[in-house]
Amino acid sequence: MYRSHNCGQLRSSHINTEVTLAGWVQKIRDKGFITWVDLRDRYGVTQLVFDEERTSESIFKTAQKLGREFVIQVKGTVIERASKNPNIPTGDIEVLVNELQILNISKVPPFTIEDQTDGGDELRMQFRYLDIRRNPVKNSLIFRHKVAQAVRNYLSSKDFIEVETPYLIKSTPEGARDFVVPSRMNPGEFYALPQSPQTFKQLLMVGGMDKYFQIVKCFRDEDLRADRQPEFTQIDCEMAFVNQEDILNTFEGLTRHLLKEINGVEVDAFPRMTYDDAMRLYGNDKPDIRFGMQFGELNNVAKHKDFNVFNTAELVVGIAVPGGNAFTRKEIDQLIDWVKRPQIGALGMVYVRCNEDGTFKSSVDKFYNEEDLKAWADITQAKPGDLICVLSGETNKVRSQLSTLRMELANRLGLRKPNEFAPLWVVDFPLLEWDEDTQRYHAMHHPFTSPKPGQLELLDTNPGAVKANAYDLVLNGNEIGGGSIRIHDKKTQAVMLRHLGFSDEDAKAQFGFLMDAFEYGAPPHGGIAFGLDRLVAILGGQETIRDFIAFPKNNSGRDVMIDAPAKIDEAQLEELHLKVQSK
Amino acid sequence: MYRSHNCGQLRSSHINTEVTLAGWVQKIRDKGFITWVDLRDRYGVTQLVFDEERTSESIFKTAQKLGREFVIQVKGTVIERASKNPNIPTGDIEVLVNELQILNISKVPPFTIEDQTDGGDELRMQFRYLDIRRNPVKNSLIFRHKVAQAVRNYLSSKDFIEVETPYLIKSTPEGARDFVVPSRMNPGEFYALPQSPQTFKQLLMVGGMDKYFQIVKCFRDEDLRADRQPEFTQIDCEMAFVNQEDILNTFEGLTRHLLKEINGVEVDAFPRMTYDDAMRLYGNDKPDIRFGMQFGELNNVAKHKDFNVFNTAELVVGIAVPGGNAFTRKEIDQLIDWVKRPQIGALGMVYVRCNEDGTFKSSVDKFYNEEDLKAWADITQAKPGDLICVLSGETNKVRSQLSTLRMELANRLGLRKPNEFAPLWVVDFPLLEWDEDTQRYHAMHHPFTSPKPGQLELLDTNPGAVKANAYDLVLNGNEIGGGSIRIHDKKTQAVMLRHLGFSDEDAKAQFGFLMDAFEYGAPPHGGIAFGLDRLVAILGGQETIRDFIAFPKNNSGRDVMIDAPAKIDEAQLEELHLKVQSK
Repeated sequence: MYRSHNCGQLRSSHINTEVTLAGWVQKIRDKGFITWVDLRDRYGVTQLVFDEERTSESIFKTAQKLGREFVIQVKGTVIERASKNPNIPTGDIEVLVNELQILNISKVPPFTIEDQTDGGDELRMQFRYLDIRRNPVKNSLIFRHKVAQAVRNYLSSKDFIEVETPYLIKSTPEGARDFVVPSRMNPGEFYALPQSPQTFKQLLMVGGMDKYFQIVKCFRDEDLRADRQPEFTQIDCEMAFVNQEDILNTFEGLTRHLLKEINGVEVDAFPRMTYDDAMRLYGNDKPDIRFGMQFGELNNVAKHKDFNVFNTAELVVGIAVPGGNAFTRKEIDQLIDWVKRPQIGALGMVYVRCNEDGTFKSSVDKFYNEEDLKAWADITQAKPGDLICVLSGETNKVRSQLSTLRMELANRLGLRKPNEFAPLWVVDFPLLEWDEDTQRYHAMHHPFTSPKPGQLELLDTNPGAVKANAYDLVLNGNEIGGGSIRIHDKKTQAVMLRHLGFSDEDAKAQFGFLMDAFEYGAPPHGGIAFGLDRLVAILGGQETIRDFIAFPKNNSGRDVMIDAPAKIDEAQLEELHLKVQSK
Repeated sequence: MYRSHNCGQLRSSHINTEVTLAGWVQKIRDKGFITWVDLRDRYGVTQLVFDEERTSESIFKTAQKLGREFVIQVKGTVIERASKNPNIPTGDIEVLVNELQILNISKVPPFTIEDQTDGGDELRMQFRYLDIRRNPVKNSLIFRHKVAQAVRNYLSSKDFIEVETPYLIKSTPEGARDFVVPSRMNPGEFYALPQSPQTFKQLLMVGGMDKYFQIVKCFRDEDLRADRQPEFTQIDCEMAFVNQEDILNTFEGLTRHLLKEINGVEVDAFPRMTYDDAMRLYGNDKPDIRFGMQFGELNNVAKHKDFNVFNTAELVVGIAVPGGNAFTRKEIDQLIDWVKRPQIGALGMVYVRCNEDGTFKSSVDKFYNEEDLKAWADITQAKPGDLICVLSGETNKVRSQLSTLRMELANRLGLRKPNEFAPLWVVDFPLLEWDEDTQRYHAMHHPFTSPKPGQLELLDTNPGAVKANAYDLVLNGNEIGGGSIRIHDKKTQAVMLRHLGFSDEDAKAQFGFLMDAFEYGAPPHGGIAFGLDRLVAILGGQETIRDFIAFPKNNSGRDVMIDAPAKIDEAQLEELHLKVQSK
């Protein structure tokens, strides 16, 4: 037995107990005649004391040679601490050591193992095993475990069965790029790693599993944006004999359970908003509704004056920034510069100061009178003391720009409180979205999403207008889950694939097994998938997912700790019947 | 709402309730004036009744058009059943249908959806989604879920944290062949899929996670033997500050918990046996101890007579087959033929009939007298009525042959009872094993296993004799788990890798990150991994893992349902900087 207690366990009730502890040397304070060592393990920190009078000479000398992150085992007596430390649970006691064994020494770590470390991101990734010793990372991983356990226990209690679907599957052209795995036993052929277990979970519904879930790794070979990982984890769920309402209720239940169990927060029934409303009111299909600043569309009250910028714009739209009238002229100018940066791309910004006395002062006073501006204020719900920011241009672009501005201002004003949770269902997504690059429609969700009843015919005449039985769960401005009611008959699936540009032959080659399955009594079904990495980060009140992943990859998809990917042997390539092409 | 109840839910207490059910048509009995339909879902079967008098004409007609596996929704009244069926939980009632909707039709399934199906293995794999509708497969998957949940809840309650380790890692030459994944962003470089998260879990221990587990997919690109899968699931565990005793106790606890929770079986403390004893007494490092038939080594009592076969053999060894004297001469001859088959490879078999009157009759009466045979019987613990089977030859070979014979006889005699559980720890495994093919020592467990204290020096003089801190958990003749105490200092790890034939350069390239980690305060640690597929099969009392995997691959590593692996686009290959070499 390496230890009788862990380092977070001892209290004053243990005084006079003989204990054995093991852990890492966190801190050493050497006063010459007395040495204190903070001993750390996963569970906490306990103060050890070695002193010239009460500790044997050899142990006292060894103690003075300890270094940071040494691994030691000590035996000793729990004694009352002279100066108690109320900041840690073991702060009332210390352990007077009478045996000390160094289990392993340590080089000086490349960064401090403290909550606030001096290590940069790259260094911390390279020595991730040291980074994990730090409370913020360690606690994030433990937090993730708790969330995953809560998900599993909740869904199990609701009759969901976790079924493992295969990782070595088949590459499909739809969606993001697949990672592929050459097959040695089938020369020239490849498996693909799943982007999601989508078709398998549908087959499980055809197979009568009724309620399926799985916490599962998924893979996408995309050019990585910040805070995206090539492998990520999904809470993947599917149910048979359900309509959209059943799914929303079931997973609202899960989410409420998590918020209560993990965060101790009770939330009201989740509001629902159509995709069209989300775009109109927030310029975004994942609005953060912890705060207001809804868009006010100003076409009716801002056009047909002499201000040509607005007159020629497709959409004039504004938001009221609470208390924004306090901004100085310089601050407002900086804000205008900010929206004009290429990443945002606005051509300019019109603003209206809403004075406390009910009067207005705008950057377009030349064109609009007090009454005009009053109308703007009404529509944007601006109050005295607010600042109205107005952008104009092509509808989609200007909505996106104003949405970015809204979030930026909310961040600056501290309106995005990490411990406040505002979930929202966004429903009635379009079935298809136009892709400028490929000049064709893509499935907005995926090719298995069913159109709303009666809208199948619209596919031929106005594909962009077809709405889907698709829904997203949004939490604090992040899409944490998304799903749909699926197509469950072969004919509709074939029509859908044809509209996505599949020849009948390709459709059969890629999805034949699914369409075949639909001929043998496929039940109506639908589901949802949650991004676990993002979900735990948000529940944990964090902006980035990085610390909730034990061994994340960097933005080039590299694991800098183990140095992967890496070259492999020629012999290995040969066995796989492959040759690397130099560029 | 598609249903108010499921098909396994209704009882006589529901009589007169209006219900809505949905599911699959399992069976139709059409008597002309009355039609009974068995409606099936995951939860059970409920009898529906349509009758000419009480059912509307249009519904009655529709009912008569139903086919097997049609998906329907019905509304109706729960009524008492005239002839009750005590074999199913809903057997007291039936539902008199007043509304019927066909949700989906079905072609005639390629095999019957019954517990005993007429479908062959290949067909069932191709239509796995239909196979899953069958109780044996469906229940196996649900059983697997229950086991996994029980594992997670138990380990979580013991402070273990489930941490997800990466799937895209680095290829290593040690162990089985890796599946590799070409990296598009890093041309010419490859990830590998993990054969196990071994190094990552050790790094988590270095990182202070203290107790880790993960239920995780692992991958091995091996030529597949029957009942092996290229992807399989492990319960992977690791603990810091532990010795072997701690690990054995912890996971004995887990296994006892599973046996109790899942099987309702209480087992005594698990016996422990050294590897050497297991080989000596059972010829096998995973002995099935549900029954006796321990080996008796007969060198001392069978050599030095005139029987040259034994005199020239390295080992003469026998087992007593309980009641085996009842075998006819023909049966014994067949047994001799059986052990002489090339798969077993014995040169012959000597047998001794132990008569009820205490006399013996052997196939070598020419060489051995009654007293000699009495000594054999004593050593093999044979009783009157038994048959002693004796093999001889080179020690390792003859042990393996006799072990195979022992298992075969146990199967024939029904001694391997699926509902009896006999766990066993096998300990003190050799550190290394000699590989004839490569003419060098390989790590028996893996290169991170620590030798027993004080045996490191033996590595130079007698490598094969070095014992490891390694252990297997054996259940009913199957290795269900294996693990070891790990090396946790750089120097020992370097010595070990050198002995496994790694140059210092290769060692650094492959495992440098781990050896670096050992320099920053690595704690003593060890762990174990269970094969979940096999574990659930054994707990489920089954011989094969196939039905406990939702979508297994065949022996060529193919998923015949989705037809993977498959060719991929030239463009995709080009992006990966790869070319397929024709043979």
